[in-house]
Amino acid sequence: MSAQQTTNRQILLASRPGGEPSEENFQLAETEIPKPGSGQMLLRTIYLSLDPYMRGRMNAGPSYASPVEIGEVMVGQSVCEVVESNIPGYHQGNIVLAATGWQGYSLSDGAETRKIDRLLGPISYALGVFGMPGLTAYAGLLNIGKPQPGETVVVAAASGAVGSVVGQIAKINGCRVVGIAGGEPKCRFVKDELGFDVCVDHRQPELADRLKAACPDGIDVYFENVGGQVLDAVLPLLNNFARIPVCGLIAYYSASELPAGPDHVPLLLRAILVKRLTFRGFIVVDYASQFADFISDMTRWLTEGRIKFREDITDGLENAPRELIRLLKGENFGKKIICVAPDPTRL
Amino acid sequence: MSAQQTTNRQILLASRPGGEPSEENFQLAETEIPKPGSGQMLLRTIYLSLDPYMRGRMNAGPSYASPVEIGEVMVGQSVCEVVESNIPGYHQGNIVLAATGWQGYSLSDGAETRKIDRLLGPISYALGVFGMPGLTAYAGLLNIGKPQPGETVVVAAASGAVGSVVGQIAKINGCRVVGIAGGEPKCRFVKDELGFDVCVDHRQPELADRLKAACPDGIDVYFENVGGQVLDAVLPLLNNFARIPVCGLIAYYSASELPAGPDHVPLLLRAILVKRLTFRGFIVVDYASQFADFISDMTRWLTEGRIKFREDITDGLENAPRELIRLLKGENFGKKIICVAPDPTRL
Repeated sequence: MSAQQTTNRQILLASRPGGEPSEENFQLAETEIPKPGSGQMLLRTIYLSLDPYMRGRMNAGPSYASPVEIGEVMVGQSVCEVVESNIPGYHQGNIVLAATGWQGYSLSDGAETRKIDRLLGPISYALGVFGMPGLTAYAGLLNIGKPQPGETVVVAAASGAVGSVVGQIAKINGCRVVGIAGGEPKCRFVKDELGFDVCVDHRQPELADRLKAACPDGIDVYFENVGGQVLDAVLPLLNNFARIPVCGLIAYYSASELPAGPDHVPLLLRAILVKRLTFRGFIVVDYASQFADFISDMTRWLTEGRIKFREDITDGLENAPRELIRLLKGENFGKKIICVAPDPTRL
Repeated sequence: MSAQQTTNRQILLASRPGGEPSEENFQLAETEIPKPGSGQMLLRTIYLSLDPYMRGRMNAGPSYASPVEIGEVMVGQSVCEVVESNIPGYHQGNIVLAATGWQGYSLSDGAETRKIDRLLGPISYALGVFGMPGLTAYAGLLNIGKPQPGETVVVAAASGAVGSVVGQIAKINGCRVVGIAGGEPKCRFVKDELGFDVCVDHRQPELADRLKAACPDGIDVYFENVGGQVLDAVLPLLNNFARIPVCGLIAYYSASELPAGPDHVPLLLRAILVKRLTFRGFIVVDYASQFADFISDMTRWLTEGRIKFREDITDGLENAPRELIRLLKGENFGKKIICVAPDPTRL
């Protein structure tokens, strides 16, 4: 926030983490603020989104997106203010969503950029409940989970940007909703504020037993964004014909290597076969065509107070590495956002 | 075949196998042929179906069906002749499909029994291409696999009762079809007789490399009836949005125990997420409502010569244990059937 107006601060990927990332994997760099050429605009980053998928981009291996190269600016979506524009239709002061990465200023040609409607709520919501996490929850739950009234829906990371929306949409659809979250404050929030029926604390012992007690009729939809011990606890409770949208696997993101020995795959496949489960992976861009419906439904639900959304905002671009590391450990509480420059709509 | 007409021979489950079953797990018993009471009919078993699922019924653990108890007649479907009937609509000499288990004679109240139309072909086809294996292939491939023209479909156990039909229906749907089978004679049959584009021999070394060479455009549908090393070879080749109907896991059926250590589940789940795969288990009874469509389509395809079906028939009920053991090792060649008594339609 203290950066000079002539200096562009950037956070680069300095090295690839072997397992859990550390601050040494990042490097703060300073460059000149670039000048927009013809057909370009200069953007000032206001809010930077931090999301679990960023851990995957720090790896060299192929995934559904290219990795960040060493020395490159870390990738990420942000809400920006247009400082100067040579693009018709974009004007100084416009608030836009863009894929700027972790930096204070950037140039854009308008591709992968869209204007944000300030009337919909805080402009940071474009990174959360009106953005990628919200559409992820909406599209994954409704298209793959297909929750029916009276069914039991389980979601981990229940206080997070995606999980909190999954559970509330499941409640709107008449389901019994069981959250899983880490620690008593988050569990209380999930139950009391978000209105889940139960929230189970995965930091307490005997998760499997407590989850079983929380799901007396089994589990019909498990929204998978964690993997690991949570999936182990869920698997025996899944009912016949249960649906498992596979959205994320944060438990494995920092695994330094995957074992090569005998495996548990038979157990998982047997469950899929015998219980006729559907495991289906998805990525939010697969459902881009549902964005308009999503915004329409979400606007109504927020207006009616049926969806609540918690943000966890930290000031200062320099804190992004530490906050991503905390996010990957579940130490955030709500949608994690870095405030890189003052929000002009709140001045 | 040499049984006296007053003696009913039965094969009982004598003990539960720890891993691979042996003939000691079965016991031949002789009882009197029962007399049908009111509302009952006496059936003479002509053809007994042997299927991989029978291995699962020999275990004590819960599955989608109850286990066979020790001392009980082994379960199984068969084609029977009605010897004597006290049920209206069933008459001596009728040929019926029934769940008699492994025995020469049995009583039926007509439930779970249906008459077989002799005009459709050999009456044994009711256990194969017109029966459970055929409907399994048809329903699993079309409902879950959803093959599109030009896509690549891979099926293991390609010369078997299910796999052979899967591949031929995929060909009818305009797909490139790659079979996997054990040994040169089966592979030749799959390619030359069934018309698959390629067949890869899983008994030769470097299955993964050869499968990759056989699938230059990747894999869009993998019909899973094996698991194990075949799945390991398939997984890296799956394309984005590939569909995997999970029909069977014969590689694991005789695993004496599943390891408890670190596992490969992360690899499988990562593939599901990153490639947006759909793994979906199913059991043929889930698609019972499609039986009429299936019979209609299959009759046409057989008549047109677009589907061929190979049977592997062994005479003598006493050979059923040995033949089930061979089936579980992939030593059958075509749909495995035990001929328990002479086929009256072939006399």
